[in-house]
Amino acid sequence: MKQRILSGILMLPAAAFFYFGGKALILGMLAIALIGLYEFYKGWERAGSKPCPWIGYVAAVVLYGLGWFTLDQGLREVDFPQYLAWFFLVMLSSCTVLFRRKDHSLADGVITAFGAFYVVYFSYHVVLTEYYFHSAVWFIVLTAFGTDIFAYFVGVLIGKHKLCPDISPKKTVEGAVGGIFGSLLLCGIFAWIFNPEWLLPALMIGFFGSFFAQLGDLTASIFKRKMGIKDFGNLIPGHGGILDRFDSILFTGPFVYYFMCYYMLITEGTHLVGTV
Amino acid sequence: MKQRILSGILMLPAAAFFYFGGKALILGMLAIALIGLYEFYKGWERAGSKPCPWIGYVAAVVLYGLGWFTLDQGLREVDFPQYLAWFFLVMLSSCTVLFRRKDHSLADGVITAFGAFYVVYFSYHVVLTEYYFHSAVWFIVLTAFGTDIFAYFVGVLIGKHKLCPDISPKKTVEGAVGGIFGSLLLCGIFAWIFNPEWLLPALMIGFFGSFFAQLGDLTASIFKRKMGIKDFGNLIPGHGGILDRFDSILFTGPFVYYFMCYYMLITEGTHLVGTV
Repeated sequence: MKQRILSGILMLPAAAFFYFGGKALILGMLAIALIGLYEFYKGWERAGSKPCPWIGYVAAVVLYGLGWFTLDQGLREVDFPQYLAWFFLVMLSSCTVLFRRKDHSLADGVITAFGAFYVVYFSYHVVLTEYYFHSAVWFIVLTAFGTDIFAYFVGVLIGKHKLCPDISPKKTVEGAVGGIFGSLLLCGIFAWIFNPEWLLPALMIGFFGSFFAQLGDLTASIFKRKMGIKDFGNLIPGHGGILDRFDSILFTGPFVYYFMCYYMLITEGTHLVGTV
Repeated sequence: MKQRILSGILMLPAAAFFYFGGKALILGMLAIALIGLYEFYKGWERAGSKPCPWIGYVAAVVLYGLGWFTLDQGLREVDFPQYLAWFFLVMLSSCTVLFRRKDHSLADGVITAFGAFYVVYFSYHVVLTEYYFHSAVWFIVLTAFGTDIFAYFVGVLIGKHKLCPDISPKKTVEGAVGGIFGSLLLCGIFAWIFNPEWLLPALMIGFFGSFFAQLGDLTASIFKRKMGIKDFGNLIPGHGGILDRFDSILFTGPFVYYFMCYYMLITEGTHLVGTV
């Protein structure tokens, strides 16, 4: 418990990146993506696969680099095709892994691409959300950590019914419901203090975002279980690696971003000028 | 040889889809994507994996459905975020494959997503190119088939030096160079007849596109070799399955689309109003 709180304090630098936003956030998220990618590929290696990590690292630098150089230029119509082009190039590079036939199995190329999409592309939505929807970026953190913390304490206090003993034996139904409540509460309080007219979308994000947070957590658990590892790493004492800590954010990031896109589109008629 | 020419004639319906464009092209390409996806997943099953084909089929219908309902609405600013959201949902659905732990290995989920990206997303660039850059869609066909046909005949006539005996034993260096020449020639003639001021970009597409065509062909060959199959299917007598025939187009489609995007951006200042 003491270690858990101590490690929580170690997460403050990440909060600083979110607070400053812009290029600080790009750098911070790039660092998280690179470490996460390292951990993810290491896990696959433990499971007997041989992805090509360098393709993932270069893909991360290129994607965050695109954000660095284009996002604040206001070239909005250029932003999206370049991300689609990035996808194509990642797929293409990953296919070239297969050309070294003797060293690699067919799955290695596929895993290389998947790692880049799962860790790099998912995490990049934090940057997209901050640039397009400004303070909505906090919903990504609040849904993820609100769910995580409340699920943990509610589960410890009153947890009785197992949620999915196969995948994550300690999780309980009570904890899961507590997580949804925590996410709702934090998002609601945040909107109530900083932007009262945003209370409705904030509560919607809090509710549905919690499902994505828990899905992200469970997905990472399955990966770890199948890879035969307990944690993705040991960067943060008591909290495992970067991926163990950011597994929920990988899923709440895209959820919040697309929710905001479509919410702005429906209420304002366009998602490109949205501000919260 | 006779069978090869006969099968070429069977490809005429595909040419009709390209000629009519618009919604006919969407339907035609969707059919090709669905059959290709079926063949691709079948190949993986032969190699011992168990992807979840239905996720891929639904993903195909959703992506082409997005094209059907939004492309001719002129909602250009909506187009691209929806494709990014599609990516996220495909990744998410593929991760859920892992939740049925007892039936599926870790790679099965990854392969499910990869199939959707490789077959569905790549093939969809034909539709994107036709909607945004109109007759430039023919470059996708001309680079792919120009390369294929010229590489075949030049290889048969004067081929001596093996290109990559490990991957595709019959391919020769002479054939590869002949393929580049064929692609250049067809793209050049097409531009010269229909749009002379487009000769320079057409020749650039013809030259570089041929590399993508051959890379697509070789990538499909590696897949087949590793899966232990000769052809992806036997839909077209003498030409194998749909994927055997469209393997080059999967790579020349995205290449032509992004080439046109950036070419229009550099020459016209925007890629969203491009017409050829």
